[in-house]
Amino acid sequence: MKVQMKEVPATEREVHQICLDWLKRRGVSLNEIAELTFYLQKDLVPDITPEECLHHVKQVIEKREVQNALLTGIQMDVLAEREQLLEPLQDMVVRDECLYGIDEVLSLAILNVYGSIGLTNYGFIDRVKPGVLARLNNKNDGEIHTFLDDLVGAIAASAAARLAHNRKKQQEE
Amino acid sequence: MKVQMKEVPATEREVHQICLDWLKRRGVSLNEIAELTFYLQKDLVPDITPEECLHHVKQVIEKREVQNALLTGIQMDVLAEREQLLEPLQDMVVRDECLYGIDEVLSLAILNVYGSIGLTNYGFIDRVKPGVLARLNNKNDGEIHTFLDDLVGAIAASAAARLAHNRKKQQEE
Amino acid sequence: MKVQMKEVPATEREVHQICLDWLKRRGVSLNEIAELTFYLQKDLVPDITPEECLHHVKQVIEKREVQNALLTGIQMDVLAEREQLLEPLQDMVVRDECLYGIDEVLSLAILNVYGSIGLTNYGFIDRVKPGVLARLNNKNDGEIHTFLDDLVGAIAASAAARLAHNRKKQQEE
Amino acid sequence: MKVQMKEVPATEREVHQICLDWLKRRGVSLNEIAELTFYLQKDLVPDITPEECLHHVKQVIEKREVQNALLTGIQMDVLAEREQLLEPLQDMVVRDECLYGIDEVLSLAILNVYGSIGLTNYGFIDRVKPGVLARLNNKNDGEIHTFLDDLVGAIAASAAARLAHNRKKQQEE
Repeated sequence: MKVQMKEVPATEREVHQICLDWLKRRGVSLNEIAELTFYLQKDLVPDITPEECLHHVKQVIEKREVQNALLTGIQMDVLAEREQLLEPLQDMVVRDECLYGIDEVLSLAILNVYGSIGLTNYGFIDRVKPGVLARLNNKNDGEIHTFLDDLVGAIAASAAARLAHNRKKQQEE
Repeated sequence: MKVQMKEVPATEREVHQICLDWLKRRGVSLNEIAELTFYLQKDLVPDITPEECLHHVKQVIEKREVQNALLTGIQMDVLAEREQLLEPLQDMVVRDECLYGIDEVLSLAILNVYGSIGLTNYGFIDRVKPGVLARLNNKNDGEIHTFLDDLVGAIAASAAARLAHNRKKQQEE
Repeated sequence: MKVQMKEVPATEREVHQICLDWLKRRGVSLNEIAELTFYLQKDLVPDITPEECLHHVKQVIEKREVQNALLTGIQMDVLAEREQLLEPLQDMVVRDECLYGIDEVLSLAILNVYGSIGLTNYGFIDRVKPGVLARLNNKNDGEIHTFLDDLVGAIAASAAARLAHNRKKQQEE
Repeated sequence: MKVQMKEVPATEREVHQICLDWLKRRGVSLNEIAELTFYLQKDLVPDITPEECLHHVKQVIEKREVQNALLTGIQMDVLAEREQLLEPLQDMVVRDECLYGIDEVLSLAILNVYGSIGLTNYGFIDRVKPGVLARLNNKNDGEIHTFLDDLVGAIAASAAARLAHNRKKQQEE
């Protein structure tokens, strides 16, 4: 029996909305992502505000490439939580195994949309794990966020890159 | 209830073997991948043999990064066939939607291991669809290979890049 | 003696204008790049027009990441023409050596801004070399376009990806 | 007058040797790079030795993709020191302008050879700037290392990734 496509694909607006829903359901608020962006930029951009960070986080999540990575990564986390992945993939994701780098591969797909300048910020917060990243990395609550913690870091770093581009343009106008 | 890790992670040898099994079960032989490599290189490397191509395909699949991409991509295809992905992801994968590029993102993770020189070969066979790629793209048999067709193309192009590097070294010895 | 920075960095508008100038001086018109985009999309988007392709090419070149890659790549070509690169880099660039893939690395930086969906189009035209790409690849006129031919292909493929994203949004409004 | 290719391209061995020479001439020793790798891994791999780190650094520099990125990046630094780049590129490189990300693009080409697992280590040391990275970033001595500091970080992080892969294999044998 052949798997059927739906008659029409989801609209761009629907895909976007579902991403926002999934983030919420996985316990991540846009404000928490914006706090990471604030953390990354506060020393470089003295007059930065949480609202400005939130604005750029929202804009990043408007991009279809970002949505594709989010949907795919969260799907993997959810399947691992339900033990529905095949072995050895199931164990690699649950364990957040160091040699399994597909979570970083998806994050890179997000970062690349805003150029390479977000790369080092991403690496930095992934290692330091401020704010929401610490909670997502806590392995003791039964939730699995192997993909989501990297994706959240990538969105925050992308928002920081977007903010830097924007600031330069504003200064020049 | 917390999802448990296995006591020990799969060994590198086990991960490799499971990749070979999954490829076989999804109907792709290493010889068919090697034929793509042969197709790509036959005009550039006059004395190339199918055996040499097969050797490099095998070597590419020894790499853990390649295995990670293969396991993740095939898993996505299988879940889509069983209609176990959440919407709108399920429909995007079944439809092989043009704006969903995570299959290319995983392929890029394979290609990058052998440098950027495999990039254009990958793009070329993905568009021309010779050999096994035509079969994997046939949407009429109920099987879903949205990820696998790209991954197979990436392995073949990577094997071609590996072969080119090797040939240069051999000539110089 | 220390190399001095200029008092203020170039504005975004200046960087953009210089990219357009450099393209022109290296003999590439935006219309020629748009023709590549048209070539890539004409069978997929029946009512596509050259003007629409040109619009998206122009938008791609507005991105700072694209400008960075263009400036760096054209600079390398110019230095190679003047024999001002150090060996063995000078010879690698003049020869467009197959194992030197930094031209593809810079192209990838362009493609990634529009997601992975431009990847296969880029690979395809890089191999088939339609239109302006054939001229840039002609090694008999003393000009060196080792970087520029790849960058032009990447801009055309990115414009095609941008066009595809846009069309979907328009249809849904 | 047409720029001539050399009769034969540089051998792989020659390209490798010239990379080692250029690193030395730019004031970076392999031991200093190995110290960065040690810094990154010492808490994760308790019995790690400086010699083991040095071994993996040397192996990373054997890869042609790494050599291509090194030669191109160091060439850019040297040209900027001699004020031989065209504006606005000259100023972007001297200034190490935050919106110019081609140095990170080349670093990514190195990191990708060892998969995405080196990404976060790279980002981390690029921000913390331990050891040799602090010296390369010192803008007061008239030397320009806009590219080299990123490339050195990428080699160190790649060596750490290579070491992690190797350790797992050794444990299993």
